[in-house]
Amino acid sequence: MERGQQQGKRTHDITKPNKKGKSQTIIFERGVSIIGGYSIVGKKEGQGPLGKTFSKIVDDEYFGEKTHEGAEQKMFEHAIRGAIKDANITQDDVDMMMSGDLLNQIISSSFAARTFDMIFLGIYGACSTMALTLGVGACFIEGGFMKNIVVSAGSHFASAERQYRTPLELGNQRPPTSQWTVTGVGANVLTKFKKGNPKITAVTFGKVYDWGVSCPNNMGAAMAPAAAHTIIAHFIDTKTKPSDYDHIFTGDLGKHGENILRDLLANANYPVAENYSDCGRMIYDLDQNQYQGGSGCGCSAVILNGFIMDKLKKGEYKKILFVGTGALLSPISSWQGETIPAIAHAVVIEN
Amino acid sequence: MERGQQQGKRTHDITKPNKKGKSQTIIFERGVSIIGGYSIVGKKEGQGPLGKTFSKIVDDEYFGEKTHEGAEQKMFEHAIRGAIKDANITQDDVDMMMSGDLLNQIISSSFAARTFDMIFLGIYGACSTMALTLGVGACFIEGGFMKNIVVSAGSHFASAERQYRTPLELGNQRPPTSQWTVTGVGANVLTKFKKGNPKITAVTFGKVYDWGVSCPNNMGAAMAPAAAHTIIAHFIDTKTKPSDYDHIFTGDLGKHGENILRDLLANANYPVAENYSDCGRMIYDLDQNQYQGGSGCGCSAVILNGFIMDKLKKGEYKKILFVGTGALLSPISSWQGETIPAIAHAVVIEN
Repeated sequence: MERGQQQGKRTHDITKPNKKGKSQTIIFERGVSIIGGYSIVGKKEGQGPLGKTFSKIVDDEYFGEKTHEGAEQKMFEHAIRGAIKDANITQDDVDMMMSGDLLNQIISSSFAARTFDMIFLGIYGACSTMALTLGVGACFIEGGFMKNIVVSAGSHFASAERQYRTPLELGNQRPPTSQWTVTGVGANVLTKFKKGNPKITAVTFGKVYDWGVSCPNNMGAAMAPAAAHTIIAHFIDTKTKPSDYDHIFTGDLGKHGENILRDLLANANYPVAENYSDCGRMIYDLDQNQYQGGSGCGCSAVILNGFIMDKLKKGEYKKILFVGTGALLSPISSWQGETIPAIAHAVVIEN
Repeated sequence: MERGQQQGKRTHDITKPNKKGKSQTIIFERGVSIIGGYSIVGKKEGQGPLGKTFSKIVDDEYFGEKTHEGAEQKMFEHAIRGAIKDANITQDDVDMMMSGDLLNQIISSSFAARTFDMIFLGIYGACSTMALTLGVGACFIEGGFMKNIVVSAGSHFASAERQYRTPLELGNQRPPTSQWTVTGVGANVLTKFKKGNPKITAVTFGKVYDWGVSCPNNMGAAMAPAAAHTIIAHFIDTKTKPSDYDHIFTGDLGKHGENILRDLLANANYPVAENYSDCGRMIYDLDQNQYQGGSGCGCSAVILNGFIMDKLKKGEYKKILFVGTGALLSPISSWQGETIPAIAHAVVIEN
């Protein structure tokens, strides 16, 4: 038996997230306002069913840069500037940039940070990063430590593919459970409660669990139990149920993972129906050849700052649960035969 | 001219850290208490001049595991349990684990996290991680969001060397400006003010700057300006000067970087003398063949939880400034010809 399986918590019962009755949820009484948002995506995402909801579509996968890594970094800079502009404030008004991405040493975030005169906090939560930065950012605002914070998360298909899997030039086949890393960056500006804006009213931070899934091409299966765990913890902590939310979004389990999560929640007596969608499942059309759907930090980040924000602002949603899910593997951990620990963080956004 | 040089802030004047007069510093009126600490190191660190100050020395570089990555992860688990025990509380009393390391996707931290039933927040700040987790953790405590938080940072020479440079088996020569990644993990437990413990009374979060240094084997030179920037911002924000601190520690600039920082601070009219030391310079003896000294998240983390805490608890230090410095590069950014952005975060610890 491997170390991870011995020491991990894979047998943990997701229907009893907090054995000790301790809450994982922080409630913000007045709410932390989201006063600005921006999404920038690549061509493939722009051609998908949500294409019209994004702030900007970039057809050139290099975005005018020499490398895909440079393109990803530039997308971060662009999204952050866009969110600040959307908030109708200036860069000088922003105290902190909080950001994460999928590249080793989160270089897209930290290289983008050198172009801004702001405190920088680097976060790593894999594909849960957008929800995580919203949650941590909201705590910094609610605690009175910062006035305005810009949070962001993103990914790029080409830079992720060669880092996590194989160089694109190899033209490797993709297994049917694989997801397609979204090229895109989402960014938001957070500030203390300001009437008339969508606001974060609670965050449920997740714990790391490992249910023994070892295939790095089946991350939906690895992450679905973590999503169920955090969502159930959230319901218990806040004494709510699925129907209290106009919609619940996860990002990014893909189609297969979405189905697993539906089953897990139903078995735990928290069934979700039409009011649940996975961002990975939503972002591409069936004919876009991406198997289980989208993945990557950018996926839920751009859908939040497109489809979801549109509906919140129009009043079609009054209260949503936005759940970021992360598979905390690396290529080396998989090569060494390790299983995949996963985490999920949930944020309540109301308008 | 490269993109980084065009867009970076390398010409930024370190003597004027905040053009807009905005503070980068958060003051904790009563202080956030450090009620537990632990340091675990490898054989080489144990043989160094500070060997007697560490909580535990592990002679086996594999720590009984099959891989160096497994050893690093196990050291995290060990240090976290040690800090919790030292705090005289149980794991059930700890709300959150906040941690970071140097490995891609911070696998040491997140794999260790699956063995604990705690909220997990993954942080990436390269070698500034220990100071960064202390600062962010203190904000979470001060804001009333968590009761007890365990923060940790660490590194392992062998896992870092093969990831950032070359496999050890190659036996490559090391350039004279290189530093030696410390094998070690430090961990602390933070809680709200509790009399009789060392306490964090302020944190100055840093900004990312890039002064155009491109050699990944000369990180002291890349980070020294970032350290100077944050330290000067701290002095301005808190209206203090170097002599107000019993000691100022940076980690980890190495000998060369320490000298650069001394020059930069002297030129900015904040000269430091005997009351300044770099953790990287301190951890090895001259005859240990490590050129500029130690580096890696673990270096300042274990010196904090050894040499520094000893002196704070004995009353030899009443007030110190602990400055973590991080070089935010990755191998791929260097291969692509990028310069090295750097950051520093400063924490005031008093007893």
